[in-house]
Amino acid sequence: MAGAITLERILALQAAYIRCIDNNELEAWPDFFVDDCLYKVTTAENHRLGFEAGIIYADTKGMLVDRIAALRQANIYEKQSYRHILGLPNVVKNGGDEAESETPFLVVRIMHDGQSDIFATGLYFDTVRAAGSELKFARRLVVCDSSRIDTLMALPL
Amino acid sequence: MAGAITLERILALQAAYIRCIDNNELEAWPDFFVDDCLYKVTTAENHRLGFEAGIIYADTKGMLVDRIAALRQANIYEKQSYRHILGLPNVVKNGGDEAESETPFLVVRIMHDGQSDIFATGLYFDTVRAAGSELKFARRLVVCDSSRIDTLMALPL
Amino acid sequence: MAGAITLERILALQAAYIRCIDNNELEAWPDFFVDDCLYKVTTAENHRLGFEAGIIYADTKGMLVDRIAALRQANIYEKQSYRHILGLPNVVKNGGDEAESETPFLVVRIMHDGQSDIFATGLYFDTVRAAGSELKFARRLVVCDSSRIDTLMALPL
Repeated sequence: MAGAITLERILALQAAYIRCIDNNELEAWPDFFVDDCLYKVTTAENHRLGFEAGIIYADTKGMLVDRIAALRQANIYEKQSYRHILGLPNVVKNGGDEAESETPFLVVRIMHDGQSDIFATGLYFDTVRAAGSELKFARRLVVCDSSRIDTLMALPL
Repeated sequence: MAGAITLERILALQAAYIRCIDNNELEAWPDFFVDDCLYKVTTAENHRLGFEAGIIYADTKGMLVDRIAALRQANIYEKQSYRHILGLPNVVKNGGDEAESETPFLVVRIMHDGQSDIFATGLYFDTVRAAGSELKFARRLVVCDSSRIDTLMALPL
Repeated sequence: MAGAITLERILALQAAYIRCIDNNELEAWPDFFVDDCLYKVTTAENHRLGFEAGIIYADTKGMLVDRIAALRQANIYEKQSYRHILGLPNVVKNGGDEAESETPFLVVRIMHDGQSDIFATGLYFDTVRAAGSELKFARRLVVCDSSRIDTLMALPL
């Protein structure tokens, strides 16, 4: 039987997820998701208008694995790095072995010459699922505040 | 009897508060305060100098309700959106049914054309009060780091 | 016997630490460290290349005390203030009376004219040690994402 999904466990999951990305350990990124996950990235405007089509759509963990493989081949990470800062998660629903939370995020981009700027802000809409002692994302919808980000969207969010 | 005010309850209150604002559910914002609340917004410079007069002053929940009504009529939210990112709360005093905490905040403004910049940073000085299972703000003093913000101060902080 | 090092205790330590700095109570800053602490500030590039030499190196609490005294004499804080925003800590190791965590940070600099910009981002690599009810830093390695910060590094991070 899975243990209760506490705020502390959700905090730990969120923190580990962005650590994986910012440490550039992208091959481990898909393991934060269940096999039949849903991962979408879209803009606030699209989200408000109810458009299904977003910037990124993946409905299996395998698609996330493929995404990282493609990213590594394209090798576009040389010139900048990123730093995610997460706000405090809102647990909006919690019962049984699933919980829903909303977590604000900010991503800073650090250019090779040292210049830093705000790359993206937005909200993670998550459904997390407990399986034994593990907690994984069953669904992550990433809603970016700005509509100006699509062409840069190689980085997992 | 009110339960103890744990760090976890304070985290949850802070997170729910900014969710309300960033989701533009401003009519629900006054409900985060007790009826005889004190809500003030000021600058770090005024705060340091001990000036009472700030940018915003409200000492009843009704004044907060009025504020949102005025804001909705002025309808000035079309062209930008905001994203609050909160740092970790400091619980500086805790006993009985009230606790005092200080929480750093950062607000990013996202313009209609997609440009994002730092709108405000500062510190929330809060007194939270437990009434049964509920936790509300008895007092929120918002101290903005920059002195350059007064004219823009329609947004609840 | 020291109590267990919980995530909640680590959160509280991190929050108190940056409160001390942002409130300009720098004389209290060394007390967040044990006597035989190790405190280093370096860049992500140096860290990746394994270079030992960084921007700041101190291996006793006394050196931190000296640092603040020098800083106060130089009196270079008049024209700007800083606001630290911490992300969620990752507890990567925890056992006995020590724990290791990694915590992302963002520092905003607020100039005297009110202009705000991103001063630094990075990651704290910490070893915290419990002594009775107290939790202190045995080791803090501050890795700044940008290589453009060394000349400005008077501020404790």
